[in-house]
Amino acid sequence: MKTLIKNGTVVNATGTATADVLIDGETIAAVLAPGSTLLGFDIESNVDTVIDAAGKYVIPGGIDAHTHMQMPFGGTEASDTFETGTRAAAWGGTTSIVDFVVQYAGENVLDQYALWQEKALGNCAIDYGFHQILSDVQDSSLVAMDELIKEGVTSFKLFMAYKGVFLSDDGQIVRAMQKAASNGSMIMMHAENGSVIDVLVQQYLAEGKTDPFWHGVSRPWQAEEEATHRAIMLANLTGAPLYVVHVSAKQAVEQIAAARDNGQNVFGETCPQYLYLSLEDQLGASSEEWGSFEGAKWVCSTPLRSKHEGHQHHMWQALRTNDIQMVSTDHCPFCMKGQKDMGIGDFSKIPNGIGSVEHRMDLLFQGVADGHLTPERWVEVTSTTPARMFGMYGKKGVIQPGADGDIVVYDPNGHTSIGVGKTHHMNMDYSAWEGYEIDGHVDTVLSRGRVIVDDNQYVGAKGHGNYIKRGLSQYLI
Amino acid sequence: MKTLIKNGTVVNATGTATADVLIDGETIAAVLAPGSTLLGFDIESNVDTVIDAAGKYVIPGGIDAHTHMQMPFGGTEASDTFETGTRAAAWGGTTSIVDFVVQYAGENVLDQYALWQEKALGNCAIDYGFHQILSDVQDSSLVAMDELIKEGVTSFKLFMAYKGVFLSDDGQIVRAMQKAASNGSMIMMHAENGSVIDVLVQQYLAEGKTDPFWHGVSRPWQAEEEATHRAIMLANLTGAPLYVVHVSAKQAVEQIAAARDNGQNVFGETCPQYLYLSLEDQLGASSEEWGSFEGAKWVCSTPLRSKHEGHQHHMWQALRTNDIQMVSTDHCPFCMKGQKDMGIGDFSKIPNGIGSVEHRMDLLFQGVADGHLTPERWVEVTSTTPARMFGMYGKKGVIQPGADGDIVVYDPNGHTSIGVGKTHHMNMDYSAWEGYEIDGHVDTVLSRGRVIVDDNQYVGAKGHGNYIKRGLSQYLI
Amino acid sequence: MKTLIKNGTVVNATGTATADVLIDGETIAAVLAPGSTLLGFDIESNVDTVIDAAGKYVIPGGIDAHTHMQMPFGGTEASDTFETGTRAAAWGGTTSIVDFVVQYAGENVLDQYALWQEKALGNCAIDYGFHQILSDVQDSSLVAMDELIKEGVTSFKLFMAYKGVFLSDDGQIVRAMQKAASNGSMIMMHAENGSVIDVLVQQYLAEGKTDPFWHGVSRPWQAEEEATHRAIMLANLTGAPLYVVHVSAKQAVEQIAAARDNGQNVFGETCPQYLYLSLEDQLGASSEEWGSFEGAKWVCSTPLRSKHEGHQHHMWQALRTNDIQMVSTDHCPFCMKGQKDMGIGDFSKIPNGIGSVEHRMDLLFQGVADGHLTPERWVEVTSTTPARMFGMYGKKGVIQPGADGDIVVYDPNGHTSIGVGKTHHMNMDYSAWEGYEIDGHVDTVLSRGRVIVDDNQYVGAKGHGNYIKRGLSQYLI
Amino acid sequence: MKTLIKNGTVVNATGTATADVLIDGETIAAVLAPGSTLLGFDIESNVDTVIDAAGKYVIPGGIDAHTHMQMPFGGTEASDTFETGTRAAAWGGTTSIVDFVVQYAGENVLDQYALWQEKALGNCAIDYGFHQILSDVQDSSLVAMDELIKEGVTSFKLFMAYKGVFLSDDGQIVRAMQKAASNGSMIMMHAENGSVIDVLVQQYLAEGKTDPFWHGVSRPWQAEEEATHRAIMLANLTGAPLYVVHVSAKQAVEQIAAARDNGQNVFGETCPQYLYLSLEDQLGASSEEWGSFEGAKWVCSTPLRSKHEGHQHHMWQALRTNDIQMVSTDHCPFCMKGQKDMGIGDFSKIPNGIGSVEHRMDLLFQGVADGHLTPERWVEVTSTTPARMFGMYGKKGVIQPGADGDIVVYDPNGHTSIGVGKTHHMNMDYSAWEGYEIDGHVDTVLSRGRVIVDDNQYVGAKGHGNYIKRGLSQYLI
Repeated sequence: MKTLIKNGTVVNATGTATADVLIDGETIAAVLAPGSTLLGFDIESNVDTVIDAAGKYVIPGGIDAHTHMQMPFGGTEASDTFETGTRAAAWGGTTSIVDFVVQYAGENVLDQYALWQEKALGNCAIDYGFHQILSDVQDSSLVAMDELIKEGVTSFKLFMAYKGVFLSDDGQIVRAMQKAASNGSMIMMHAENGSVIDVLVQQYLAEGKTDPFWHGVSRPWQAEEEATHRAIMLANLTGAPLYVVHVSAKQAVEQIAAARDNGQNVFGETCPQYLYLSLEDQLGASSEEWGSFEGAKWVCSTPLRSKHEGHQHHMWQALRTNDIQMVSTDHCPFCMKGQKDMGIGDFSKIPNGIGSVEHRMDLLFQGVADGHLTPERWVEVTSTTPARMFGMYGKKGVIQPGADGDIVVYDPNGHTSIGVGKTHHMNMDYSAWEGYEIDGHVDTVLSRGRVIVDDNQYVGAKGHGNYIKRGLSQYLI
Repeated sequence: MKTLIKNGTVVNATGTATADVLIDGETIAAVLAPGSTLLGFDIESNVDTVIDAAGKYVIPGGIDAHTHMQMPFGGTEASDTFETGTRAAAWGGTTSIVDFVVQYAGENVLDQYALWQEKALGNCAIDYGFHQILSDVQDSSLVAMDELIKEGVTSFKLFMAYKGVFLSDDGQIVRAMQKAASNGSMIMMHAENGSVIDVLVQQYLAEGKTDPFWHGVSRPWQAEEEATHRAIMLANLTGAPLYVVHVSAKQAVEQIAAARDNGQNVFGETCPQYLYLSLEDQLGASSEEWGSFEGAKWVCSTPLRSKHEGHQHHMWQALRTNDIQMVSTDHCPFCMKGQKDMGIGDFSKIPNGIGSVEHRMDLLFQGVADGHLTPERWVEVTSTTPARMFGMYGKKGVIQPGADGDIVVYDPNGHTSIGVGKTHHMNMDYSAWEGYEIDGHVDTVLSRGRVIVDDNQYVGAKGHGNYIKRGLSQYLI
Repeated sequence: MKTLIKNGTVVNATGTATADVLIDGETIAAVLAPGSTLLGFDIESNVDTVIDAAGKYVIPGGIDAHTHMQMPFGGTEASDTFETGTRAAAWGGTTSIVDFVVQYAGENVLDQYALWQEKALGNCAIDYGFHQILSDVQDSSLVAMDELIKEGVTSFKLFMAYKGVFLSDDGQIVRAMQKAASNGSMIMMHAENGSVIDVLVQQYLAEGKTDPFWHGVSRPWQAEEEATHRAIMLANLTGAPLYVVHVSAKQAVEQIAAARDNGQNVFGETCPQYLYLSLEDQLGASSEEWGSFEGAKWVCSTPLRSKHEGHQHHMWQALRTNDIQMVSTDHCPFCMKGQKDMGIGDFSKIPNGIGSVEHRMDLLFQGVADGHLTPERWVEVTSTTPARMFGMYGKKGVIQPGADGDIVVYDPNGHTSIGVGKTHHMNMDYSAWEGYEIDGHVDTVLSRGRVIVDDNQYVGAKGHGNYIKRGLSQYLI
Repeated sequence: MKTLIKNGTVVNATGTATADVLIDGETIAAVLAPGSTLLGFDIESNVDTVIDAAGKYVIPGGIDAHTHMQMPFGGTEASDTFETGTRAAAWGGTTSIVDFVVQYAGENVLDQYALWQEKALGNCAIDYGFHQILSDVQDSSLVAMDELIKEGVTSFKLFMAYKGVFLSDDGQIVRAMQKAASNGSMIMMHAENGSVIDVLVQQYLAEGKTDPFWHGVSRPWQAEEEATHRAIMLANLTGAPLYVVHVSAKQAVEQIAAARDNGQNVFGETCPQYLYLSLEDQLGASSEEWGSFEGAKWVCSTPLRSKHEGHQHHMWQALRTNDIQMVSTDHCPFCMKGQKDMGIGDFSKIPNGIGSVEHRMDLLFQGVADGHLTPERWVEVTSTTPARMFGMYGKKGVIQPGADGDIVVYDPNGHTSIGVGKTHHMNMDYSAWEGYEIDGHVDTVLSRGRVIVDDNQYVGAKGHGNYIKRGLSQYLI
């Protein structure tokens, strides 16, 4: 199968080129000056498929480095399977995900890793890799880190919250970081002070403050800023690279920026919800069906932040200034019925998570349309940096010879309406993004040279997606 | 003329690819997966020249965005002409320069621009663009800014020092910045407080401190930090993008970093001398021929900084963290005999400048060899960012279809000895870099598809270099 | 004349004491535990006057370290003479002022000093000292600095604005600072970038923006922040202590705070107008008599700042945290009729200044009533620190044996209504503070042991005030 | 008993006065202009004792707000009893201590408080108050906080280290801080990340690194900086005032300074050891008797910091700039024989502590002699601020009528040699300060009007010291 994408504007992280892209089999064979011939050789006549991308952006497929497909949590499970979730991702122009192997406290790390490989195998529409969650770090966890690197799992997520479930104490974190410093892997951190949050949650509940809104209030920016600073200092002590997931507070951004100016390998990821949504949105949320429990739709951790305090504005700025390096979704979908509704009367029982894997590329492109980002920066934060950060660059995150044919033809003059009954393909009974209108459109999506979405049709196949054996980070300074 | 560079490692700012590069005429036609055929078509047989780059880096040609060829200064003239200087640049793997049109206070801006075009025309070995110096900004200067943008001169350098010669006062700077904010051009700034320096110079001379060493002492870091902060604040007030030239003090870097974290379009350039050389080197310098006047070889402004204070270490770090974005040379060569020696007995009469245009790519590659930079960052700070910063990207600064065939084949396992009688091709009777040994080597240099340096031979031609009509900056956030 | 102030709460900078104060002649003889006898000796029977201060604060008389009595400016003269101005000060609980000897560019420093001594001699109601303004610093100015220290003038004010009138360029500032560093005197700085402001003023006027409001807009916070930073860096270079007058922008405060954390002897003074009034007040100002020119009442430099940007809130905080050390008035009164009205149609011609010398103690006490300050801090910022800062402590600024009998009995439960026709005693045809109601009252004021204000009556005498020969600063770290 | 201290220089926090001090009974009756008569009344003839302080400083007695007399720790007990420790304090010019009631995890707070009152009662040479240690904060601890305030215990110390012994987790800290914010008390914090330290200690021991030197290495500055930041953020969240004990790392100082500039009530205490001693001193320590275990003499927590990193220099600066507000000793003495030697072969078993209660006033006066501090600042950081910080001002920390007659006559021209067999009165078999020579001397010490040390003789009495029932902090902004 040979495909030529012609006449498009190839966008990469440093600029654009008017160029044709030739894919031979699963791999990009050449990037060429536009025109039908090369040294007199007629390329177009020698390929199977020609896609005309005139007036369109030709970009490396999106990489969502933070998803939780069918993740067990609080007695239920995230509502997207690897099958439904990766299919929805494909619809949205994302051609790779990195999902999290979950190891809860008490479980064996390598067993869990094997289990997750099994869950994903044969089910994915697009390529997928894994980060490993390490809860309550033990000696065996440290051994597993070395083992997993050989398997292509080179990043390990720790938690400073969720005691008894995920949390590692600071001594455990230090030990994992020492290991990461020695084997070159990346420490990912859920940076919220769980001990403080647990107290606040109990206090609010005891006061009868049980609505979803109080979820956010019980996780104040101080809890995030503090944990972020702490993680940075432990990384400073040990020399480990640190990647802070789902940064939502501007004060946390400032900590990351300061560490980076100081020469530390510290990185920050944000998510679309922290760019667009606010605590005030959640507070005001109400519906006939759910009443004030409507706010449960946006219960996630870290929580939405107050617009009044300017976090969202600051986050767009940080995305421009590279104080925040990339955008993932933290896709962790739960339905309102049968899942989120477990928390009626007790916000702490609401499964935490928002589903966005389908909309990340569009939502971030809207940032281009709104003047927040350049097209180059859009590609960088959604694809190139994720690939570099997590050891996939060369095959992923770039349009160049030898790279996988993961390509999206994106129409900057198209339009996309988000919402249930509209473009919604995630396995959720609501959309956190209901009503968002995007000034762009995912026209065609190729995964390893194969068209999987075209003209609003999914034409891919379950099991097409391969496991991505990742290398060490290519983004360290 | 068709050329294939095969089997090399193509390095760009975000990563590397094993790829072949096909140049057709002056332009890159394709970047291809390595191998002799494309869709069955035998490329190698259809080109004129094949360069085997196996084991080598294939990089976009260096762009030195800060040179002063045959610049008139203090009654003499920089010793490299456009001919000798660009030829030396080519030897060192630099395929584009951006030189400065000089308008001294009292001169007409556009007249000077025409004069400089004349000086360069037909003389250059490589492509060249111009920044425009604006001294003592007048109404006519502001009008000229709009005119010059049409000519491809989109960046304007102002001075906070050299009263009566170059200096513009803060009100004049504000007016030029207002103009830049409105027409999208870039303000470049020589950020030293000249008023303070003038007093210190007079005081040291009055105390009989006339040796070259006192040049640096009379230009303390406070004078640079202060002016840098001031320029940033004026840019904040007016909304103009600001590019600070030849940053040497770590405190100035901190000001730039803070402005950037704050979302301002503020940029910093450093030069090889601020990464490697120190005030202590200059202080200790002595020779049989020149005695303590030997130090004059390194008289430049901003001056070398004290190693004791850690500026050099901090500058390498800032280059990694992107608090400093790029490296130029501030190439401004003067011979010791007949030029620098005008300052015997009075350091203030020593023509300011160091010649480095030939060695920038090597000196920065040494930073790769020493573990300061990745190869990608080397390419970024010496070529990609200069191209983006000054509106040349697409044609320059990147290896992609449609780009000019400005390419260097660099051997990371080669060796280069710098010094007079060794690799020295600049028109100077000494080298500021005498004795430096580089763990790499410029093997082959192509300019717009033509080999101009190969196997330690210059095979280019006077007048090959074309004027680069630049666009607005492509690096703004 | 022997006076006993009994039963009051003596407030000093570190705390309070219930104590009696005995004044013998012009000087405090003792501070005593309350009660009629000391070792059996009946004090009350042996004094001439007993003031019962039960329920009142007994505080060291206010020191206003920034006044401009009968200052010539722009063809007119500040409307308070030393007689009227010091009398008004006395009414308001201020028992010392430090006024500025004005030397305009071109004038002789020592001649001006002699002239100012003459102006004040025999006219003042309270004690007075002098700072010396140095404009366009010359060699002779540096000589005069040494001379004036012997005269008790130990602080020298420079200007970074008002070119041709007051301004010294940075080189001149450095020379004065070098002198200050060597002779121990204090550099005071009007920190605004005059060069920038001059451009903006001309631009606004050219656009027909002539109303008083544009005065503030043409002096943006960036001009103050920049100059403040510059002054700090020059002080860093030279080692001189630096006192920044009339700080109004929070960004300038941040610069001062950073310098202080860094160990520099840098100090900041603010004024009541920057704590209470805002640019928005001025913008909205309108009256039947003056129309929008009403805003001229609050034209001062540095200007009022935008409330929207939070400067006033930050200034109160800085006063608490000691990032700002003291409060003076910058009392520089001009009448609307015949003075301010010179600027109708051209805001740049409005004489700059607000009259507050009478109200400083009350306005700052309102800060106590409103919870911004403790009573101790009130005394510290209005009396103790001014005394220490400018070399008067021991005689002024404290209630202790040997100190001058400059004492105010202040009723924290009293009330004061500010306004023309109410408490107004300054020689102005309007009050910048019209309508302010204060939750406290100046009951009795003693100057060197003599009651000069009592029960809303002025009982002092012209010429009672003596010249204060000041020593070097007692506040340096 | 009536005492007149005449002709001295009374030093207080804002300046000095030449004045006589009259003490009647236990209390200061008057501060008087020097001279034998007041309104004709001959004071000197009417007192029992006259102390001539001509040429001497007359200062408020030192207040050491951080001591651990006979504190049980690790199976032993601090070697100074309330009797020996307070007597040694008196020798050194300290007239008040605030000791810590120890409540270990599992113990009852109020029981411990009662026990400590019992320990001290009738044993002290000088006045004493108590802070309460709260370990592993429980509901009952919060109740006890309210109770103890009524008892005059208004400050509560928490620990972020020593798990299972002292440590409270962050949630517990938040609860205690919420209580403090509501009842106005002060939270004191031992700010070191114990979880991290515990891991490092185990790792070093496992590597056979058992010498005392490794104690310091296992408690890196990052562990202190991190915990300091964390405590500040929790205080920010809750609104509690925060006092960080024994600050030793400059990075921790920077955190405190930033919080204070931001308007938080955050305070820092340092100790003489962090001003004078370094990790390098400890590393190099060796003796015939103890070999490299000699270093155990300086094992304390927080540990000594590296001189190479500049902590000591920075700490003196912070003391000047008020980024650090006061100096206590953390007096916690252990003998080498029978106590410290428990840690031979395992540094983690060495009882932590240095004995300095006797030398604080002298060691800090040496800072005056060396030019680090003014005499006023010496008094402020050793007496006035401790009194204000912990609710004793008015009675303690100042020389004014109504204050306790706690006074030291200090000879700035005297001399003191520190060391065992010299001035040593603490119950320790070594001195951490052996060989220090002080350019000053404690001549006479009065406690509540009674001379207790005079002319190198202790003339006080066991049990003279009274319990100080403290109020809330008088230092909050």
